[in-house]
Amino acid sequence: MHKKRPLILVTNDDGISAPGIRMLIAIMKEIGDVIVVAPDKPQSATGHAITINNTLYINKINIDDDVQQEYSCSGTPVDCVKLAVHEILKRKPDICVSGINHGSNSSINVIYSGTMSAAVEAGIEGIPAIGFSLLDYSWEADFKSASKYIRKITLEAIKNGLPKGVVLNVNIPKLKENEIKGIKVCRQANAQWIETFDKRTNPQGRDYYWLTGEFVNEDKGEDTDEAALENGYISIVPVQFDLTAHHAIKDINNWEI
Amino acid sequence: MHKKRPLILVTNDDGISAPGIRMLIAIMKEIGDVIVVAPDKPQSATGHAITINNTLYINKINIDDDVQQEYSCSGTPVDCVKLAVHEILKRKPDICVSGINHGSNSSINVIYSGTMSAAVEAGIEGIPAIGFSLLDYSWEADFKSASKYIRKITLEAIKNGLPKGVVLNVNIPKLKENEIKGIKVCRQANAQWIETFDKRTNPQGRDYYWLTGEFVNEDKGEDTDEAALENGYISIVPVQFDLTAHHAIKDINNWEI
Repeated sequence: MHKKRPLILVTNDDGISAPGIRMLIAIMKEIGDVIVVAPDKPQSATGHAITINNTLYINKINIDDDVQQEYSCSGTPVDCVKLAVHEILKRKPDICVSGINHGSNSSINVIYSGTMSAAVEAGIEGIPAIGFSLLDYSWEADFKSASKYIRKITLEAIKNGLPKGVVLNVNIPKLKENEIKGIKVCRQANAQWIETFDKRTNPQGRDYYWLTGEFVNEDKGEDTDEAALENGYISIVPVQFDLTAHHAIKDINNWEI
Repeated sequence: MHKKRPLILVTNDDGISAPGIRMLIAIMKEIGDVIVVAPDKPQSATGHAITINNTLYINKINIDDDVQQEYSCSGTPVDCVKLAVHEILKRKPDICVSGINHGSNSSINVIYSGTMSAAVEAGIEGIPAIGFSLLDYSWEADFKSASKYIRKITLEAIKNGLPKGVVLNVNIPKLKENEIKGIKVCRQANAQWIETFDKRTNPQGRDYYWLTGEFVNEDKGEDTDEAALENGYISIVPVQFDLTAHHAIKDINNWEI
């Protein structure tokens, strides 16, 4: 029996022309039929933002003259997934992959990440979804070294599906192919950013700020994504969008309210 | 012994002049010393977006000529919390309250909500935090009817603190004060939006889209926020920002990767 090629939706938050998504498209074309719907400009750190008070534009574009269909979109990564599923795709994709992000989305970064929010949105729509991120912010980063792992993880997700309400957050250490030690399934490290604001004065004499910060991880658990990455492994964190802190319900029920 | 008045940070996503935040400020002034840091314009549905590729401005403003300090900020709700904690406040606030949002943030809405993302950000910073939302989108909504409940929940949160890594998502039904039946601690209903895009053509002949959708709740659990609200109760969902789907780690570990 001829098995149908999977339909793969590709998106990201660095914009449709970013090297990371171009590599992800190349990997996915070996696996299935690819449709790309991605932001027309960088949308890093947009989290789960959606566009409700503004218009949305889609452009069918051709970047590398190959077989995949590509659409750039004026909205956020989450908008891209919604538009893809409800306006562009003729059927539900078999999987949605987002990335490869230029920079880490491990630990608490998952919550700020447009890349991961796109994957989460696909999960909400009932589509198996994975966000891939490389721990290298450079535009010239080596996205190729992890390609065999990205292919393997994607194929397994297509084969096995994902538990209901779960998407994957995959982070890749900045290492050469033969230096990557393997894959670890992890929990999200309890780390955070300690912000500092870089205060400056504009030419009109008005103060303004740049957000900067230092990433601090005091979670020494060996089962965390940060530990896996530090030790040369690719980390996979299964991520859920039921945010209920079930363990806290009892506590709050004891309040005098 | 004289007990120090609590320091309360107030923010929202509808903008600093929205009726919802003005009511929240009024309620909080009876409880403690209030500092407001809120967006200078509506920032609904911005999720956990932060401003990393653009400048941030803060303006000290005076809206109602009362004792609280107020700052409007050019950034997102999450930016407001970061700026408040790291630039504006002299000490960590005792609590951060966000809202009162014009419209529901129950169920999956928590993930798109700027109001709740501000509360989550405060939680990440180690500050007890609560997002309040009223199930009425109108600018003329009756924010007063729930004020005694908002006061009670806030006082209990200050008194008891919140479990580590947990913030509260409080939704208030659109009812008169004497119609509200009480408060229920709930889990997030497994509901979602079914999007439809309203496609139009602009005066230049180019197609564009408006995101619209229908909220569909097929989760009939009596322990959900949606059930509580439908039955006339205020819902409290404890929300966590460790997104790890711990139950799924074993499944993924069985993959051939």
